[in-house]
Amino acid sequence: MPGLEQDTLHASLQDPLLDSIGFLNEVMSRFPQAISFAPGAPHLAHLLDDDLTRYVELYVDHLRRTRGLDLHGARRLLYEYGPARGLINDLVAAALQDDLQCAVAAESLVITVGAQEAMLLTLRALCRDRTDVLAVAEPCFVGITGAARLLDVDVVAVPEDGRGPDLAALEKECAVLRAAGRRVRAMYVAPDYANPSGTVMDLDTRRRLLEVAARQDFLLVEDNAYGFTAPEKHQLPSLKAMPGGDRVVLLGTFAKLCLPGARVGYAVADQPVHTPDGRGRLLADELAALKSMVTVNTAPLCQAVIGGMLLEQGGSFTKLARERSALYRRNLGMLLDSLDRHLSPGGQTLPGISWNRPEGGFFVRMRVPVRVDAALLELAASRYGVLWTPMSQFYLSTAGDDELRLSCSYLDAERIEEGVLRLAAFLRDPVFRQ
Amino acid sequence: MPGLEQDTLHASLQDPLLDSIGFLNEVMSRFPQAISFAPGAPHLAHLLDDDLTRYVELYVDHLRRTRGLDLHGARRLLYEYGPARGLINDLVAAALQDDLQCAVAAESLVITVGAQEAMLLTLRALCRDRTDVLAVAEPCFVGITGAARLLDVDVVAVPEDGRGPDLAALEKECAVLRAAGRRVRAMYVAPDYANPSGTVMDLDTRRRLLEVAARQDFLLVEDNAYGFTAPEKHQLPSLKAMPGGDRVVLLGTFAKLCLPGARVGYAVADQPVHTPDGRGRLLADELAALKSMVTVNTAPLCQAVIGGMLLEQGGSFTKLARERSALYRRNLGMLLDSLDRHLSPGGQTLPGISWNRPEGGFFVRMRVPVRVDAALLELAASRYGVLWTPMSQFYLSTAGDDELRLSCSYLDAERIEEGVLRLAAFLRDPVFRQ
Repeated sequence: MPGLEQDTLHASLQDPLLDSIGFLNEVMSRFPQAISFAPGAPHLAHLLDDDLTRYVELYVDHLRRTRGLDLHGARRLLYEYGPARGLINDLVAAALQDDLQCAVAAESLVITVGAQEAMLLTLRALCRDRTDVLAVAEPCFVGITGAARLLDVDVVAVPEDGRGPDLAALEKECAVLRAAGRRVRAMYVAPDYANPSGTVMDLDTRRRLLEVAARQDFLLVEDNAYGFTAPEKHQLPSLKAMPGGDRVVLLGTFAKLCLPGARVGYAVADQPVHTPDGRGRLLADELAALKSMVTVNTAPLCQAVIGGMLLEQGGSFTKLARERSALYRRNLGMLLDSLDRHLSPGGQTLPGISWNRPEGGFFVRMRVPVRVDAALLELAASRYGVLWTPMSQFYLSTAGDDELRLSCSYLDAERIEEGVLRLAAFLRDPVFRQ
Repeated sequence: MPGLEQDTLHASLQDPLLDSIGFLNEVMSRFPQAISFAPGAPHLAHLLDDDLTRYVELYVDHLRRTRGLDLHGARRLLYEYGPARGLINDLVAAALQDDLQCAVAAESLVITVGAQEAMLLTLRALCRDRTDVLAVAEPCFVGITGAARLLDVDVVAVPEDGRGPDLAALEKECAVLRAAGRRVRAMYVAPDYANPSGTVMDLDTRRRLLEVAARQDFLLVEDNAYGFTAPEKHQLPSLKAMPGGDRVVLLGTFAKLCLPGARVGYAVADQPVHTPDGRGRLLADELAALKSMVTVNTAPLCQAVIGGMLLEQGGSFTKLARERSALYRRNLGMLLDSLDRHLSPGGQTLPGISWNRPEGGFFVRMRVPVRVDAALLELAASRYGVLWTPMSQFYLSTAGDDELRLSCSYLDAERIEEGVLRLAAFLRDPVFRQ
């Protein structure tokens, strides 16, 4: 056959968004000696000497105890097809309840292949056709905008400042869409140390966002991937746990807290769904039905590893989160300190350069006085041996064209210091003085 | 919030197709003492005493040898995010090449969360909008029609006889669609012991189907999940390995051959894609880009288990397939023999009852003289302690309303015999003589 023209394939494939991860991987593979502030990958020091078998065995013991199974019966549950909604729902529900201080029933949970699948399923369930639009605050995680592209769901973006989304702009978008016979069906938000901005939505904005959602009758899709990195006692309540939280579908992942290689995430979707037959269903049931046509079920083997990790912590994330988040905050502190020392020597910051100072999360957002594009990344990598993520991919508008994202979550102390030295040299390149 | 009306959710959720697996699981859970011929689940006898760690270690050794990594470096690849296209592509490509006798390059492979995700990705890539239609032969595996529903891809079905799809009907559908400004973009086929019919497409039909695909300019999506169950020397060539096979996207799964709990499958998509920038891409690259917005990557841990299983067999499926398929054919032989003894005593078959006699695969298709629906299944389960799958869910038309599917893949000899005894009692229920 003569080959396929790309414009005869689904339109999402012409959107650079879908290849953004591939693009960064490709650059990283060409410059293996570069220090990369690009990936938002977890630190694995705590895991590399671990024996995953121990976690699986802990979970198998749990199955034997709680379900009255023999060894073969318990192993069978890990080896065969499992229920679409998941296997470890009881453990995750209990842990979330402990963590969020809100009631999460096992039956309102779906265990997914990472938070990514949870996003796809939630969007697919909620958006009936082109009249249903997704709202986001920009900059915005590419996983949700990419999933929307794949499902032909249109996206509207409102700007965010350091305290959360611009709610007046949001209500205006709602009105504009309504006048056109369409509506905001859901809004995606990551209130805690959002990827890529590092922003924490303040308590007042959380309250007012829930009010807007009620007034405009849309759902909130809350991604809490980075909530666990908050400094102790600084953690704000999850939207799901606040008054009005019944409008919130909560998505999460074990990739950052446990390990990415297991690909386990979840959705809490306790909204009742009214069906013509009058039998009560939950939105979680609908997500599970959709999931049976996407991945059938999340690998029970991987669920067992995560289940075992939870069991080893007495069923609570809290201790695990405390250890891991201390490591991430130490890294973040080192990054911010290095930036101060090398980009603001003597208190004098390089002209046109600025960055935010999040207290948690994986990311620092930096503004530079030139256009940030693939060519600039190529220059940083080839001449200065340092990599970062261009922020434009996180914007629907051009507002982020002068921004880059720095992540230091998976790096060690010396690499952070050396990386910032290289970054400082790069930011003194003549290209920044043109 | 007052709850969601189901008709404001995506239309696929009103299709009973999406809940077909849930429906069967629900019936099975209410009748735990029933013998179930419903699930097409693999037999796990060979696995339950196995230590999965051994497979992971085999794969880690392979990584160390082939990529020059130390133990930490190799483990890191299993624990962290991996490439969207997969980790074990080299091993799977070599094994497929050995199995299919056709060249499969590692770069034309994407490792997916089971064949299900491969179906979703392939459909999404190929179907640009509502003008692109999927053709299937009915009865047809619900995974592909369900994925099409989820993506708003319309499906046309042509009947199949015991040798494969009705090609004249297929060409007629192509013409009808073309006249309406639409087109068959791809056709899904499972040429070897299809789920649910058990049909093997004969060699002549394979050749002619490839000709029709070329003439009508559509792609073939070939699912070879059950190919390995063919009796030795009875295996027909994969469409992908035949002349014209460049139009074929080949999908497969390790669920039946290795273990379902790992959720590992693949797509071979070596079709060139022409992009405006003139850089060559393969359809596999497009599938990987889409995958990054569905599941990010297939759990590296699970890929390691499958990789280790392959390595233990010297990198070839053949030995593994020979053992497993002997077990499945023995089960199938026992089922057919029991059906003969109990449903055709003295050569006299119960009136109005007939079934096919596949030589491989997991499934036997049975016709009965009444309408097969949920009420009939309830009767079989509650009064006779036996379960099976209604075939109507595999049809877009009503042609399968008098059919049921029997699977014996995961049962032991005594259960098969006892199950058929119960089935024989059920089929003598007065309901069949009304």
